[in-house]
Amino acid sequence: MGTLTLDEVSQHKTARSCWVIIRNTVYDVTDFLPDHPGGSRSILRFAGKDATTDFEGIHPPGTLEETLPESAKLGTVDINGGRGTANNETEEEDAKLAAETPEDMLNIADIECHASRTLSKKAWAYYFSASDDMRTKIHNNTIFNLVLFRPRIFRDITLVDTTARMLGIKTSLPVFVSPAALARLAHPDGEKAIARACGKQGILQMISNNASLRYPDIVSARVSNEQPFAFQLYVQNERARSEKQLRDVVKAGCKAVVLTLDAPTPGKREMDERLAREEARASGHVDDGEALSANSGRGKGTEGGVGRALFQGTAGDLVWDDLNWLRKQLPDDIKIVLKGLQTVEDVVLATQQVDKTTGKALVDAVLLSNHGGRALEGSSPPLLILEELRTYAPDVFQSLEVYIDGGIRRGTDVVKALCLGATQVGIGRPALMSLAGGFGEAGVSRVIQILREEIATAMRLLGAITIDQLGPQYVNTSQLDAILGPSPQAAAAAAAIFKAKL
Amino acid sequence: MGTLTLDEVSQHKTARSCWVIIRNTVYDVTDFLPDHPGGSRSILRFAGKDATTDFEGIHPPGTLEETLPESAKLGTVDINGGRGTANNETEEEDAKLAAETPEDMLNIADIECHASRTLSKKAWAYYFSASDDMRTKIHNNTIFNLVLFRPRIFRDITLVDTTARMLGIKTSLPVFVSPAALARLAHPDGEKAIARACGKQGILQMISNNASLRYPDIVSARVSNEQPFAFQLYVQNERARSEKQLRDVVKAGCKAVVLTLDAPTPGKREMDERLAREEARASGHVDDGEALSANSGRGKGTEGGVGRALFQGTAGDLVWDDLNWLRKQLPDDIKIVLKGLQTVEDVVLATQQVDKTTGKALVDAVLLSNHGGRALEGSSPPLLILEELRTYAPDVFQSLEVYIDGGIRRGTDVVKALCLGATQVGIGRPALMSLAGGFGEAGVSRVIQILREEIATAMRLLGAITIDQLGPQYVNTSQLDAILGPSPQAAAAAAAIFKAKL
Amino acid sequence: MGTLTLDEVSQHKTARSCWVIIRNTVYDVTDFLPDHPGGSRSILRFAGKDATTDFEGIHPPGTLEETLPESAKLGTVDINGGRGTANNETEEEDAKLAAETPEDMLNIADIECHASRTLSKKAWAYYFSASDDMRTKIHNNTIFNLVLFRPRIFRDITLVDTTARMLGIKTSLPVFVSPAALARLAHPDGEKAIARACGKQGILQMISNNASLRYPDIVSARVSNEQPFAFQLYVQNERARSEKQLRDVVKAGCKAVVLTLDAPTPGKREMDERLAREEARASGHVDDGEALSANSGRGKGTEGGVGRALFQGTAGDLVWDDLNWLRKQLPDDIKIVLKGLQTVEDVVLATQQVDKTTGKALVDAVLLSNHGGRALEGSSPPLLILEELRTYAPDVFQSLEVYIDGGIRRGTDVVKALCLGATQVGIGRPALMSLAGGFGEAGVSRVIQILREEIATAMRLLGAITIDQLGPQYVNTSQLDAILGPSPQAAAAAAAIFKAKL
Amino acid sequence: MGTLTLDEVSQHKTARSCWVIIRNTVYDVTDFLPDHPGGSRSILRFAGKDATTDFEGIHPPGTLEETLPESAKLGTVDINGGRGTANNETEEEDAKLAAETPEDMLNIADIECHASRTLSKKAWAYYFSASDDMRTKIHNNTIFNLVLFRPRIFRDITLVDTTARMLGIKTSLPVFVSPAALARLAHPDGEKAIARACGKQGILQMISNNASLRYPDIVSARVSNEQPFAFQLYVQNERARSEKQLRDVVKAGCKAVVLTLDAPTPGKREMDERLAREEARASGHVDDGEALSANSGRGKGTEGGVGRALFQGTAGDLVWDDLNWLRKQLPDDIKIVLKGLQTVEDVVLATQQVDKTTGKALVDAVLLSNHGGRALEGSSPPLLILEELRTYAPDVFQSLEVYIDGGIRRGTDVVKALCLGATQVGIGRPALMSLAGGFGEAGVSRVIQILREEIATAMRLLGAITIDQLGPQYVNTSQLDAILGPSPQAAAAAAAIFKAKL
Repeated sequence: MGTLTLDEVSQHKTARSCWVIIRNTVYDVTDFLPDHPGGSRSILRFAGKDATTDFEGIHPPGTLEETLPESAKLGTVDINGGRGTANNETEEEDAKLAAETPEDMLNIADIECHASRTLSKKAWAYYFSASDDMRTKIHNNTIFNLVLFRPRIFRDITLVDTTARMLGIKTSLPVFVSPAALARLAHPDGEKAIARACGKQGILQMISNNASLRYPDIVSARVSNEQPFAFQLYVQNERARSEKQLRDVVKAGCKAVVLTLDAPTPGKREMDERLAREEARASGHVDDGEALSANSGRGKGTEGGVGRALFQGTAGDLVWDDLNWLRKQLPDDIKIVLKGLQTVEDVVLATQQVDKTTGKALVDAVLLSNHGGRALEGSSPPLLILEELRTYAPDVFQSLEVYIDGGIRRGTDVVKALCLGATQVGIGRPALMSLAGGFGEAGVSRVIQILREEIATAMRLLGAITIDQLGPQYVNTSQLDAILGPSPQAAAAAAAIFKAKL
Repeated sequence: MGTLTLDEVSQHKTARSCWVIIRNTVYDVTDFLPDHPGGSRSILRFAGKDATTDFEGIHPPGTLEETLPESAKLGTVDINGGRGTANNETEEEDAKLAAETPEDMLNIADIECHASRTLSKKAWAYYFSASDDMRTKIHNNTIFNLVLFRPRIFRDITLVDTTARMLGIKTSLPVFVSPAALARLAHPDGEKAIARACGKQGILQMISNNASLRYPDIVSARVSNEQPFAFQLYVQNERARSEKQLRDVVKAGCKAVVLTLDAPTPGKREMDERLAREEARASGHVDDGEALSANSGRGKGTEGGVGRALFQGTAGDLVWDDLNWLRKQLPDDIKIVLKGLQTVEDVVLATQQVDKTTGKALVDAVLLSNHGGRALEGSSPPLLILEELRTYAPDVFQSLEVYIDGGIRRGTDVVKALCLGATQVGIGRPALMSLAGGFGEAGVSRVIQILREEIATAMRLLGAITIDQLGPQYVNTSQLDAILGPSPQAAAAAAAIFKAKL
Repeated sequence: MGTLTLDEVSQHKTARSCWVIIRNTVYDVTDFLPDHPGGSRSILRFAGKDATTDFEGIHPPGTLEETLPESAKLGTVDINGGRGTANNETEEEDAKLAAETPEDMLNIADIECHASRTLSKKAWAYYFSASDDMRTKIHNNTIFNLVLFRPRIFRDITLVDTTARMLGIKTSLPVFVSPAALARLAHPDGEKAIARACGKQGILQMISNNASLRYPDIVSARVSNEQPFAFQLYVQNERARSEKQLRDVVKAGCKAVVLTLDAPTPGKREMDERLAREEARASGHVDDGEALSANSGRGKGTEGGVGRALFQGTAGDLVWDDLNWLRKQLPDDIKIVLKGLQTVEDVVLATQQVDKTTGKALVDAVLLSNHGGRALEGSSPPLLILEELRTYAPDVFQSLEVYIDGGIRRGTDVVKALCLGATQVGIGRPALMSLAGGFGEAGVSRVIQILREEIATAMRLLGAITIDQLGPQYVNTSQLDAILGPSPQAAAAAAAIFKAKL
Repeated sequence: MGTLTLDEVSQHKTARSCWVIIRNTVYDVTDFLPDHPGGSRSILRFAGKDATTDFEGIHPPGTLEETLPESAKLGTVDINGGRGTANNETEEEDAKLAAETPEDMLNIADIECHASRTLSKKAWAYYFSASDDMRTKIHNNTIFNLVLFRPRIFRDITLVDTTARMLGIKTSLPVFVSPAALARLAHPDGEKAIARACGKQGILQMISNNASLRYPDIVSARVSNEQPFAFQLYVQNERARSEKQLRDVVKAGCKAVVLTLDAPTPGKREMDERLAREEARASGHVDDGEALSANSGRGKGTEGGVGRALFQGTAGDLVWDDLNWLRKQLPDDIKIVLKGLQTVEDVVLATQQVDKTTGKALVDAVLLSNHGGRALEGSSPPLLILEELRTYAPDVFQSLEVYIDGGIRRGTDVVKALCLGATQVGIGRPALMSLAGGFGEAGVSRVIQILREEIATAMRLLGAITIDQLGPQYVNTSQLDAILGPSPQAAAAAAAIFKAKL
């Protein structure tokens, strides 16, 4: 293995001879092109070039070693990093931006603004994007404004206690980090940085199935052996792969498995797709006659944005009965959380699932979620689903824990959700975005700290000093109730009339 | 017939001697001016000039031959095309625009944006315009946001089947092309390009009564003998003309006749009118003392935009009984669709119409439509009418098929309409606009492909994999139901009280 | 009486010696200053200057002769007009503006836009302004969007008849000109131009109590002896003045007296006040220590905008019983219309008023109005009051005619009001604004013509071809009904509970 | 004590030796740093510099004398004032701004606009800021638009009487000045200017616990012995301090004590915090590792904006029983007002509190308030709470007086609140902002005069000429009623179900 010049590498830029540079090493990936799970084009875009950032943002360490034969390594080269850079900042602004610290972030909007200026285009597109016109993402957030507080007076609010419980674990806040993929697009420490921050701040982290680091590596960053993690599972078409994955996770340590059900196929994230198209075009590796694929269907070609590539191999045929399979893969003390329920009907069904062998309930908790507005545009915001649940099926709260995620940006958002019955609330994008611009762990800690202080302030001003005291008596939900969906009974009746008419 | 110079032609620019150039041929139309169905002024604007684009965008081929005597042909001339050009684009932008392909269009908003930059001013005004302040056109679209989805989990969504039925025909999608006039304003292939795309994509095309190509010519572009077409009928004052038209249509092949009822007189399309005024002014052929005619009434003068000119001769005296006349003109296997119903009352009346001779139902399907917001400003969006129908008269769905058109821009819009009972959904402007900028057939195919992929994705994420499974249980309509109109009974009661008071 | 130079005149610019120029004549108004009903300051602003435009825009001809002794005329002078000019137009734009004709106006928004560019600042401020933040003025208009149409099909709409009735008179349209003051601010022909247009177009004109021409002069412009007029009455503190006024009006010819009740004191029209302030400041005649008067109260100083000055002397102590006084001043064939009713309660009271002598009903019609948003900010839009009336007291429509004015800008607005029970609909600002930029009578005719054509088109598309056919069955009022005020019974009950609590 | 140069002073800029200049006197505050209630950093920002404006805007006169030993006075220095200046005004604009008088202010929006251009950045941030995204502050104001007026006609409105009563006192208007801190940030006369204006205009002033002048000094500015004042009490952790405070207040003269309950801890006023951060940074006295404190919790560090500093030492453990303690501190003729109630439940509880000794009611009045949107973001606007009270517990109005504050900007706002049952209405920010730009007392008088005139006009146009006549019959509250919170019974039931489910 010798040293190669950039000029030499740049001549191998086609499917006939395709070299790429990753961390100063030159690889010949020509033979691997047809086997790439994400399609050959996503490699060909970097043919003859450095692909480090894009590669490492997406693939866990060790991927290269597992995938390519030793012979593919051709040599080393001296290049500059290739990090994406923020756009349109003047030098002065750049300096100001670089001087900003996590402590300068006063709220989560500041965090997002900072990320928008420091993330690479690709990372921003992946994190920020949502389906179609992004109405659902926005709705997830603005719906909190429909709930008004009813603060009480003459309460001793000297001591506020924000500690909460979740799956039998005590956490310092009723907040967890929801599964969010590809953290290394924002910071080299990626999900490890989130793990350290969660550990120090005392909250649970759900680790994405598509994390940019391997699960055991992330868990290894824990600050104590008690630090809780949950693993997000996308069941694979090849169940054996999922079974192996679960064994690895159990071995590394895990409190719960979060089975994700709200995105059996990816939504249409146009910002992401548009960027992929631009990149493909700039690299010259697009057949002009073939669509970029507005489609996000399962059976279609491999071209597309980062969001799409992640779904290769995910099973689309899961049914309730598969919970028995899942239960069998896990020791008894590992809980099962279902993520992505969006109707009262499905939560009620979740409470009814029992282990065929033991007769025990199969579902310990549900996470109401529309995948942060990244799956079906037009689906109900989680806060609305939560209110439907409280209205039509209050009994379910006795059977399992209910979480929501999507759109939480303020401590008051968290408190409103808890007043309506949520046990805990998850944040996704804020955790990823807080990594940007070199913040890493400190950024994530800052996000949690902001929420902690906002939650404590809101509780004090509300006159409730423990999480248990929060309840519907503290909120005016008339505007939310005006847009409630049908009860399960009404929905069934409507369906019946409809069938009759066909 | 010799060769004429442009200078010679340009001197014949008045009503006393009016020459125009069409496809390099110079015609003397002086004697024809008083007989022009669209009024003399719309010709005088081009007196002494080339009128090719405007003429061919509106008139079917053969019109000249049928209308003018041979003697009117004066000779040929060499001129430049005269195509309208897009405004305000720099050279660089022009180049970028020219390089765009149908595959670059990620959604229908992209299609519209592309059309707005490539269509002639006149075509854009005709396609984009709607009545008065265009509130109804916008409302048609935004009303879809009032419906939220209720996606279900644990459904096997591996195989999605978007095939649908319509008038006994199988289509690959629950989408058809609604009647939309003057396609050649956007592309020389005009409605033929739409026909070819529909054929290849497997959906039905309704051909406008005001198509810029003759019905048989459009049908001749079909990709197979089975490709279905429907013909949109505006009944003419001279019924004999309509009868001949129907005979031609039947002969050419036709699955259904779509009798249009929502625009017995044109709406006030001001963008269109304003452009006509500008053109008339630029040509110097406007009596300053006479109004451009804010009016769009039937009995008034002939001046006005493209939209207006199309209505010359259309019958305004149709009543329910005329359906018997229509039925008589058609073989038994040709279906009758009523287009433009906007109340529950009229849909119920439609189900009650029977052939006086045979006793059979006269109406096979209704297309709820407000003419894309181009007729009565302030009328109800079709999705609202559909929901009124489902609420007040669910039985009608057993008697006939119900379609809607107007405002559909996303696959989720289609799926929402189907959940509320629609059999199929029509698109109008997207089909026309996708022809622009040289796209032609490929543009139309792209629109259909985008919808296909968006529909399939929405169905998967909703947990419904066949069209039949879609139903009201998948939607939260509380915001839509809050603005429902009165039931037929309530409307009748209000009218009765009102009469009493007069 | 000799000739004076401008320099000479300009030296008499104080309250000690105050000369003004009106139509080339110089007047010494020093002695008159304390007696000016509008306050001395409004004169002192023009001290030493030409006051023609402002004077004639507000005062009827003959005012000077009646008011000043012959000795006040000092001589003549040669000056330039002093017309206010539009702001910020380039020469090219000016030329384009000057070339615009009434026929170029496609809708009433065009009329308003044209007026905004051609009226003097003072005229624009007076016409356009409304109370406080102008929310009510805007609400008057936007509330029409809450009503949706329900068009019917298969109606013979060949012949549309827009003729309507009003106070026993036949009009060509269900539209009249509401009382609107100071038309000469826009055009020297002022209210006469409106009269001629109304006569030719066949509609009724209500002449403002504050017209800039005398009532008999306006009536003299009629196109036939049958042309109908109504006179708007603001009862004066000195009833004898009102009695004389009525005698003059009756003598000149009058179908009805419109007693105005919605502005017993002027609203706070800030645009108007702000301009007056600027002018006063520019003239140097403002005591800096005294407020411009944010107040618009009756008892306060005389400073203020045009709107305020008009209210000097208006009676604020009218009660229902004063109707008997009014009836006595009028011949039997002159109808009484009450303008400015804003509650169901008051309309019901109006139906109950009977002549103490004859026992006949005193009120022939009511005009629901909030003074175009120029009186109480926050009051209900007339369309809402009309719907309250239809809902809570439908019987009143049998006792008297109901009109509305305020916010009508489209033919569809008129048709919606008629569907909800209005007999006719009044326009105010559009009539005034159409006079601007030299349009005069032709501008007013254009406004009426635009409405005529829009109304006819709306009726055809709705499927109703006579005014009598219009009714509530043609509209969906669910959005309007959601904001209905309390019934008279509910309002009384709320008041009773409230009293009990005090 | 000699004279020091600025250079000398500027060298003592650290915690080891910290000198500051106040009114030309140099103080060595090094030893005092650890004892400063607002934290050492807020002093260190001015180390080596002039701190006059910031110091005097916040601290009452006499503070220095009480706090520092004589030895801390080092000498005098000749410096320029250091007043904050408005930003970004050109010279011409500056001159125009300087020429503006209180009489130029036509409404309260003018007052705010003027203040925004003349206040120092710090004062603006303190006055204008509100919690989080300031939604609640805005909601407080915009909610008035949900109420429509129902004006009556034929009422004699010649004489309007706006006099009202409050706690047994007659006031010229139903308006008072709510407690608003730190008036000297806007004008050197501070709260004294407000006192003089209130005295002359005949309304009551509630003096902030955090006034920038001592209570007795403010009261000494009264225009007559009868001028009424109330004192706003934040109970201190050291009750003895509060008891002394009350004794001083009683001695100086006081009609009522206003116990403030809506801000037991400060809200998160980000504009304020951000400015503090900027200033700290500019001064170089920020540990970069420590957060600016997004938190606004009680137990946290001392850093933060002006708003935060004021809360040091405030008791967070008040309960209903503390009212007995308060009553004991006060002579019988001093009334108790509770400020900051936000639910029907708490108002009902207030009516039930009786003196354990005398059996008399403890609460004379309640002031519904969410602290001007500065406490809990998302809490209900006071107008909504008032309507809930009228709806669910109308009896309370018989037991005590009900006031509201927050968001009042127009006379119509006041009239609407009175129609819904309020006895009086408080203004906060308008009083402070009207002091700016040198206006002082005249500015405050202008605000009151504007409201007086707007209230009188609204009453006349409504047809109600005394405050007693105002009632719910004059308003349409359907839009407000659509967002009412739950009744106390419904809230309790929801809480009960919720508890059951846990």
